[in-house]
Amino acid sequence: MTTNSPFREILYSVQDQVATVTLNRPDKLNAWTAVMEDEFERALQGAGADPNVRVILVTGAGRGFCAGADMSLLGKLTKQQPAGAVAPGFPSSAREQYLTRYSWILDIPKPVIAAVNGPAVGLGCVIPLYCDIRIASPQAQFCPIFAKRGLIAEFGIAWMLPHLVGLGNALDMLFTARMVDAEEACRMGLVSELLPEEDFPAHAWDFARKIASTVSPRSTAVIKRQAYASLRQNLQESIAQGFDEMLESLRCEDFQEGVAHFVEKRAPRFTGR
Amino acid sequence: MTTNSPFREILYSVQDQVATVTLNRPDKLNAWTAVMEDEFERALQGAGADPNVRVILVTGAGRGFCAGADMSLLGKLTKQQPAGAVAPGFPSSAREQYLTRYSWILDIPKPVIAAVNGPAVGLGCVIPLYCDIRIASPQAQFCPIFAKRGLIAEFGIAWMLPHLVGLGNALDMLFTARMVDAEEACRMGLVSELLPEEDFPAHAWDFARKIASTVSPRSTAVIKRQAYASLRQNLQESIAQGFDEMLESLRCEDFQEGVAHFVEKRAPRFTGR
Amino acid sequence: MTTNSPFREILYSVQDQVATVTLNRPDKLNAWTAVMEDEFERALQGAGADPNVRVILVTGAGRGFCAGADMSLLGKLTKQQPAGAVAPGFPSSAREQYLTRYSWILDIPKPVIAAVNGPAVGLGCVIPLYCDIRIASPQAQFCPIFAKRGLIAEFGIAWMLPHLVGLGNALDMLFTARMVDAEEACRMGLVSELLPEEDFPAHAWDFARKIASTVSPRSTAVIKRQAYASLRQNLQESIAQGFDEMLESLRCEDFQEGVAHFVEKRAPRFTGR
Repeated sequence: MTTNSPFREILYSVQDQVATVTLNRPDKLNAWTAVMEDEFERALQGAGADPNVRVILVTGAGRGFCAGADMSLLGKLTKQQPAGAVAPGFPSSAREQYLTRYSWILDIPKPVIAAVNGPAVGLGCVIPLYCDIRIASPQAQFCPIFAKRGLIAEFGIAWMLPHLVGLGNALDMLFTARMVDAEEACRMGLVSELLPEEDFPAHAWDFARKIASTVSPRSTAVIKRQAYASLRQNLQESIAQGFDEMLESLRCEDFQEGVAHFVEKRAPRFTGR
Repeated sequence: MTTNSPFREILYSVQDQVATVTLNRPDKLNAWTAVMEDEFERALQGAGADPNVRVILVTGAGRGFCAGADMSLLGKLTKQQPAGAVAPGFPSSAREQYLTRYSWILDIPKPVIAAVNGPAVGLGCVIPLYCDIRIASPQAQFCPIFAKRGLIAEFGIAWMLPHLVGLGNALDMLFTARMVDAEEACRMGLVSELLPEEDFPAHAWDFARKIASTVSPRSTAVIKRQAYASLRQNLQESIAQGFDEMLESLRCEDFQEGVAHFVEKRAPRFTGR
Repeated sequence: MTTNSPFREILYSVQDQVATVTLNRPDKLNAWTAVMEDEFERALQGAGADPNVRVILVTGAGRGFCAGADMSLLGKLTKQQPAGAVAPGFPSSAREQYLTRYSWILDIPKPVIAAVNGPAVGLGCVIPLYCDIRIASPQAQFCPIFAKRGLIAEFGIAWMLPHLVGLGNALDMLFTARMVDAEEACRMGLVSELLPEEDFPAHAWDFARKIASTVSPRSTAVIKRQAYASLRQNLQESIAQGFDEMLESLRCEDFQEGVAHFVEKRAPRFTGR
């Protein structure tokens, strides 16, 4: 966080090859705005392209992770449009933009980790689903609140959620629109690691730093591509892709180093090449 | 339950927009018969069409949920037919009927909740899989008993079970044909909420009533359609469907009300329009 | 285990219709070699074809399950090839062989159970994923170590793992390449039963023997085929296949016996016909 930060509603910092993106409207539980949308995407795309970044951590400032779309935005949409309007309150490019929202995160060739520090509601519950891993403080809560607003399962959550927690847990969350606490989220597989409440940001950062320092960034880039590709493949196709990727990997510096540091019993020095 | 109930082997009642369908042969652990099959379908389809019903609760009378196909039915099938018979014991329309059994439940545009109060065995273990959510008493047990009867994974259970509990837990249940208790079912994701044994019916009803009274029935209808559609879609298709549904929802009364009740800090009065 | 065993690096024995295949290089934590690869496949295929075997148990001798590819093998691959080489260190038949590795295990028409007694690392973590069920000692650990070696998600693990533990847990395991202990593996659904550490081999064997003695081997063969087929099918296709399989099963001895032993309250004597 520098004084001439290019961002107003997020914080961005890089340390030890971990980029931390912090939603930063703590007095509003980090409710999502058009400004935040734009800054969030620029920050993640920037971290994705920065050769000095290996892992991206997304978290919230203060008590909450993200309270969802700011009510000032939602309120605007309730001012009903004429029945003939194609997309009330939406510019004509809205559909196109919506279709990649937020699946573009899946294309960032680095591990993206949501460190959920408090309530993650509505859109704030969608964003973590597009992160590769979710870790949580005991204060974390997950609430896909759409049904309480008369809305629907937005932004692909009807697809992503069953892939993370199974069909039954997903429908429970979507129909009840209740707050799921961190422990239940962990049981469901929505969260893969529950970290201590005290010093949660430090624990979360440490989790990210360990990935940045102990595994090959080339490996995580390929594995991320393989894992999301597997959702569109049958087993044979996935194995075939794996064979080609394996041959590539055997020619790379990081494989040489992956064996060498093990044999020499020392910390690895992966280059990503 | 009125004296001129149209049903003999189930109970049907509606209160506070929750329809409760109770399998009611408690002296037989609610073993499934042709009569029950017919009444169960009529009751659920009726509840699905009734504008006064928002949520459907399925449970069992007495100690059990459902012991599976009544042995008198199974016994008939063991009277072996000549080798040339196409479908021993089955009318020629059997295949057609089987193909929608029990996936028609997925098309009911309302949340269908299985409140599993005791053993759910064989076909009695299949029915809850086609409910959207499974909640359970500590007395609940799940047993896909087919392999112990020399049978196979019937009625799509080989497809539904892995979507709920993952492939490994599914094969364990199907191969061992053992009784899985409520706690293990919860760990697997087969059950999403474990409720107290004492007054279980009241707790289950309360769970259903909360959905009926706090979320938009229009939202749950759309979300149910989205969630099951997502199983046949890739992520982009699901997001695209979500965009169109979102635009529709923004024009609806329930969205206006969804924002208004939040802003006005009062209970919602959703109309489903 | 006889003195003229056809195997050098595995043990093979059959008792009570359970074949036990034990990876047997305990001083190397059962690290995988070309010899072991060959013997493992021959043993499982043999057990698959042996009419006296109903269930196959795979485990490791000593403290470990399998430490992964023997470093002498990996070391050879690091001796870099000229950039033009199509497949460094691989014979021209490598691709073809790789494509069925290890999905051939899914085609064995009998339950294959991994009894994970200790660390299962790298390739040693892949093998259990192709077993139908994973049971574990508290000493079990699962580590898809590829990213620490500069490698990728090999042998279809990017496909299999999300089907077992969901997408989030899978990416956590693949990115961190950390040791996941037995309890966490159970929570994720990677392991379906956690057995006592003391006498683990006896408990594991008992688990297998129970399947061999209480359910129809015909049923498990059909159910295994149905379950893996379901991963390539939509629900309607799976139900349709189930209808045809059901009709077949009703004509079989094992169905007659499945009902008879229940009615007569005695142990079943399934023939598999």
